[in-house]
Amino acid sequence: MLTSNQKLQNELIEVAGALADAARAEILPHFRTLGLRAENKLDDGAYDPVTIADRAAEQAMLEILKTERPDDAVLGEEFGFRKGTSGLTWVLDPIDGTRGFISGTPTWGVLIAVGGEDGPELGLIDQPYIGERFLGGFGQAWMLGPQGRRDLYAKGVGDLTRASLFTTFPEVGDDAERAAFEALSRQVRLTRFGMDCYAYALLAAGHVDLVVEAGLNAYDIQAPIALIKAAGGLVTNWQGEPAHEGGRVLAAANKNLHKAALAVLSEAD
Amino acid sequence: MLTSNQKLQNELIEVAGALADAARAEILPHFRTLGLRAENKLDDGAYDPVTIADRAAEQAMLEILKTERPDDAVLGEEFGFRKGTSGLTWVLDPIDGTRGFISGTPTWGVLIAVGGEDGPELGLIDQPYIGERFLGGFGQAWMLGPQGRRDLYAKGVGDLTRASLFTTFPEVGDDAERAAFEALSRQVRLTRFGMDCYAYALLAAGHVDLVVEAGLNAYDIQAPIALIKAAGGLVTNWQGEPAHEGGRVLAAANKNLHKAALAVLSEAD
Repeated sequence: MLTSNQKLQNELIEVAGALADAARAEILPHFRTLGLRAENKLDDGAYDPVTIADRAAEQAMLEILKTERPDDAVLGEEFGFRKGTSGLTWVLDPIDGTRGFISGTPTWGVLIAVGGEDGPELGLIDQPYIGERFLGGFGQAWMLGPQGRRDLYAKGVGDLTRASLFTTFPEVGDDAERAAFEALSRQVRLTRFGMDCYAYALLAAGHVDLVVEAGLNAYDIQAPIALIKAAGGLVTNWQGEPAHEGGRVLAAANKNLHKAALAVLSEAD
Repeated sequence: MLTSNQKLQNELIEVAGALADAARAEILPHFRTLGLRAENKLDDGAYDPVTIADRAAEQAMLEILKTERPDDAVLGEEFGFRKGTSGLTWVLDPIDGTRGFISGTPTWGVLIAVGGEDGPELGLIDQPYIGERFLGGFGQAWMLGPQGRRDLYAKGVGDLTRASLFTTFPEVGDDAERAAFEALSRQVRLTRFGMDCYAYALLAAGHVDLVVEAGLNAYDIQAPIALIKAAGGLVTNWQGEPAHEGGRVLAAANKNLHKAALAVLSEAD
């Protein structure tokens, strides 16, 4: 692990916080602005809105990294990959949940992760409107919000039949992915939708047991992976393998739930 | 209208605010408490959690009404109906979205409405964790939150193909209700789930175009009706009739959207 050095760890935590602060300042003035316009990013006409805020926030974060961590690589949702020489890579998604953002929901978030070749070691989820920050990595796992600072523990119930399961939209992904999700949904107590990255933060905080998604990009999941791991939970793909490249993701609050959910999801084509 | 008297209107607005303040104080200490337990309210084993917070908040609101508005009737989600003599009825749901509440999401709300026989004339939706309050009625429509005070305008896009549509869970209701919702969903640009009463607040604030639900109780919808009407939107059942008794509900940001959505939903069995 490149980041076993305590001084470096503290520096990375500090820089992650500075990035989140900068993103907040760029994004909030654009949130819930009447007349907000979303560009269509994809040529095929799919609805993938990108706001001015999204680009401005990533730009602001890139500027900070250029100064504070010039040798680190950066993978950003908006501006792609920038090479580095330190062996560390920052992974940034300025607004995860753009559909929620343009609808005014308070469940989008700024995602910031940093780590080496084996994946993220520090993850931060920020919800600027509520004023909540969730950070996990290097032995820390805490949140700061309207109720003050709290340590994070992904606890989870003892078995699937009492578990809560979250995903963002009922299609989940393709037909096979939807079917696998629905098979899991039939075994749990409560299934809820629509929370974007906020569901991962709630899992890290001990309120949600399982989050399942598909079709993710690396920048969608690296911050949740480090955060949840630091809080005591697990994140893998649907085969139990590392998920930091994206794709099909299963986050679980404890090993029992992870094993039980994996047994269902791993049947997916 | 019993409430055309300006002094009475101001008093009702003030009392509604006091009720919301009292509910916040009772509920917030119980939100995101590790080990939170939910009772099962229904004997048939359906999952309908009621927390200590739910009951304590309604009790606190009832105490205020007993002192401040002793002659008004009260319909509460937890403790049922209390008769009055003034012709006015308060309709209270201390925690709308209990499933979201126990999962830690910030999209549940305190619902407070007051009106006469023809339905609610004043509606308030409060989200205590974020610190947001939406109020509409008697010529007022505003919200107070992290970004300060703003007037509310339900604007809405010009036609269905550009509209956003919200509901809480994909089943919506029975098979016919789900089918009708899905028919509408296929015509809009964006469908989102999981926001509970918060979706109605976002519609009143101009960020969401349509909200469709089924199987609602009177206390679920009276506050949204008054709020949305005051902000310039419309709420009816799926036949275009008054919806303040609950059941199937269509909220729309403007007349064009209402008419177009009604044409789809009114086909439901």
